[in-house]
This record gives sequence, structure tokens and C-alpha cells, in this order.
Amino acid sequence: MRPYIIINAAMSADGKLSTRERRQVRISGSDDFARVDRMRAESDAILVGIGTVHADDPSLTVKSPELRSARRREGRPENPIRIVLDSHAETPLSADILVKGEGERIIVVAEDADLRKIRALGEHAMIISCGKGRVDLPCLLQKLSESGIERLMIEGGGTVIWSFLSEGLFDELNTYIGSCVIGGAMAPTLADGEGFIDESQFPRLLLQEVQRIDDGLLIRWKRKMEE
Amino acid sequence: MRPYIIINAAMSADGKLSTRERRQVRISGSDDFARVDRMRAESDAILVGIGTVHADDPSLTVKSPELRSARRREGRPENPIRIVLDSHAETPLSADILVKGEGERIIVVAEDADLRKIRALGEHAMIISCGKGRVDLPCLLQKLSESGIERLMIEGGGTVIWSFLSEGLFDELNTYIGSCVIGGAMAPTLADGEGFIDESQFPRLLLQEVQRIDDGLLIRWKRKMEE
Repeated sequence: MRPYIIINAAMSADGKLSTRERRQVRISGSDDFARVDRMRAESDAILVGIGTVHADDPSLTVKSPELRSARRREGRPENPIRIVLDSHAETPLSADILVKGEGERIIVVAEDADLRKIRALGEHAMIISCGKGRVDLPCLLQKLSESGIERLMIEGGGTVIWSFLSEGLFDELNTYIGSCVIGGAMAPTLADGEGFIDESQFPRLLLQEVQRIDDGLLIRWKRKMEE
Repeated sequence: MRPYIIINAAMSADGKLSTRERRQVRISGSDDFARVDRMRAESDAILVGIGTVHADDPSLTVKSPELRSARRREGRPENPIRIVLDSHAETPLSADILVKGEGERIIVVAEDADLRKIRALGEHAMIISCGKGRVDLPCLLQKLSESGIERLMIEGGGTVIWSFLSEGLFDELNTYIGSCVIGGAMAPTLADGEGFIDESQFPRLLLQEVQRIDDGLLIRWKRKMEE
């Protein structure tokens, strides 16, 4: 049992999430920001990796006051649960994700993460520990599912997205393709990590929808089930 | 003065041209192969980098007998001129691009490339030398233009595409996005090389057309001129 998982990311026309220095860049525009905000508001939880916390320090809050009110009217907290995949418990205590906006936070660590760090983070977030050395995703997803999370949004970065894609743990992949080229053999891409070597391992996708937004394109893929 | 330049490449949904081992993979299908074949037949010349010659050993010939006949009827050779960007004159003499199909070949080397290698290649191809250490693209494009090449197609790989993109030497960028994920921080992407650091340097694109082909998507961008 696991939540319904939607991966969402914006990339340049050449598949990069940011520059090789991991500096955050504006790939989409205001219409796409609004779309992502709606997706957040519709999610029970949003997950990012520790790399994204270090590089971008996102708050992952819902920005639109209307969407926040709507969530409150439905008896839900303003913001979805915000989750950091953080094997070694390295989320800074001053990270926006811990500091900004109301709502629950979860830091997901590996079982052998430093106990003092875990204790410090535990004052700002719920701690879930799963797997040794690195987080075990199926274990995590089972726990999230048991705690009532039905709809999980993955916002990056490339290493986390790769982990979910490579283990087949996703239902939708939404990529916004911006009208610029970033370039760079070392720049972060939509799916980093090891990468597949054999074609038979590639996750296969089904094209669901294509939509022009701002100066770019939103492509919605679904995971293609094995036949 | 330079030819009209169309960059064409197929990438996975996560922006990769192949696996990290640079093994060629099937990203598109037969309809897209036919489209690329038509593009080749409409070009005066097709250019790839030495990396692509080593990795894929493409012949770059026009595959369709009808398109080849049509070119002949117009008084043109069956295949466009095939060009390898090869600063150090390392194209193998047995490469398909030199061996297969009729038509002219050009190997583009840097001025300081090994003379013996140049001489050996000179028996199979015309040699153009431009720039020191690495090929100087504006110099090359000027020479190609002077020799009557009006329409140049760039077929990769990621390093060559990056060179043209980063110097603003292109008119169209056609990316076919396949319905698979390859992944890998080290896998070749549409635009490798150094990459830009500053957002103000990014080449900007204009979305021209989006078309479903096979199980994926062809995105046609044009270069956006500075305002």
C-alpha cells in the first residue's frame, strides 16, 4: 500500500533543473507557478530531497490565500504535510520548510543517522526512520499511507526523482518544459542518480496531455504498467 | 554569413540522449525515423561530432529510396554532405560515415591536428581546418556557406549541440521526447559541455509547434532573437 504519487518538476528545453552550480533559475512563469500551487493544495503531502533544501531552501507552502482558505474550509491544515528525504538528518534547523507557514513537517532519516541531529530536528518535525544508510522508499511510503496520506507530490530534485522513477514508485510524471537552454554535462537533470544501463529497465510512460503554459509546455505522463 | 541551422535530436522524458555508457537506445519509433529521414533529405549537409561517430557509428545516409530518387531527380547527390566535427582527426577510417553510401564527406579538424591522421582521412573525405585546439565554428560555418551549403542539420551529440547552442549558432531546435526515462547524472543530455552559469546567458526559444509522433512528442523551437 502506498499513496498516489505525482512527480512534478520544471526543466529547461535540454532537461536541466538548474545550472551546474545548482543555482535556482526561473524556468516557468506565473501561470505555471499557479498550476503548481494548485497541485500542492490538492496534495496531502509534498516531498523534496535534502539537496533541494540546501540549494533552494523552499518553504513548499501553498501561496494562494484562496487555496489556503479552501483547505481550511475542508477542515484541513493550510499547507500539505511537508516532507524532507534526509538520510543523514542534515536539514538545517533554520530551513524555510521548518520555519515558514503552519502545518506538519516530516523529516525522513535512515536508521543509522546521527542521534543528536535527529533529536534536534525532532523538536521541529516528526521523524520517520526507514532503511539503513539511505532511506528505504517502500518502507516510507507504507508508513505515509498508514498515516492517511493518499496523494503525495514529489517536487525534486533530480536525485530524489530518480529514486522514485527507478523503483517504479510513481503514478504520474509532470514535466514543465521551459523556453530556455541551460546546458552543462554536470547540471542537475530531471532524473540523476545512477541511471539505467539496459533499455529493458527503462520505466515506460504514457502520454496523457500536452498543454502550452506561459512560454513553454506542460507534458503529463502516466506510468505505463508492464504488460 | 552562415547556413540555416536546424538542431535535431531525440531525448528521453528526462532529457537524456543515451545511457551513461553512451549505448544507443531506441527513443523514438518508425514515424519519427521517417521524419528525421525527410529532414536529412531536405538538408544540404548533416553534421555530427566525433563522440557520436565513436558511440553510434551512424552512416547518416537517407534511408528512403523515394527520397533518394527525388534528390537525384533534382540533380543532387543521394545523400547530403556528411560532416564530422573532429578537432583531433580521430575519425576511424572504417567509420560508416566514410564507408556507406555515396556522396561527399567533410572532416573538420583544428589547425594543429596530427598531419598524418589528416592525410589518411584526406583520402576519404574533404578536410576543412578551422581554429586552434578545437574547431572554430563561425570559421567553419563561413566556409560551408561559401561552398554552397544553405541548410545544415546538426544531429548531435550533446557536446556538439551545446557548442552550437551556446554560441547562438542555430535557427531551430527540434527535440523529440520519447516515452521513457533513462536517468543518470552522467548520461549524455541534449546540451552537455560547460553549461551556462548565469540566467542572462541562456539562449531563449520560441515554441513553434508540438506534435504527437509515435508514443512521444516532437517539440519545435526557434531561436528567440534578442530584443
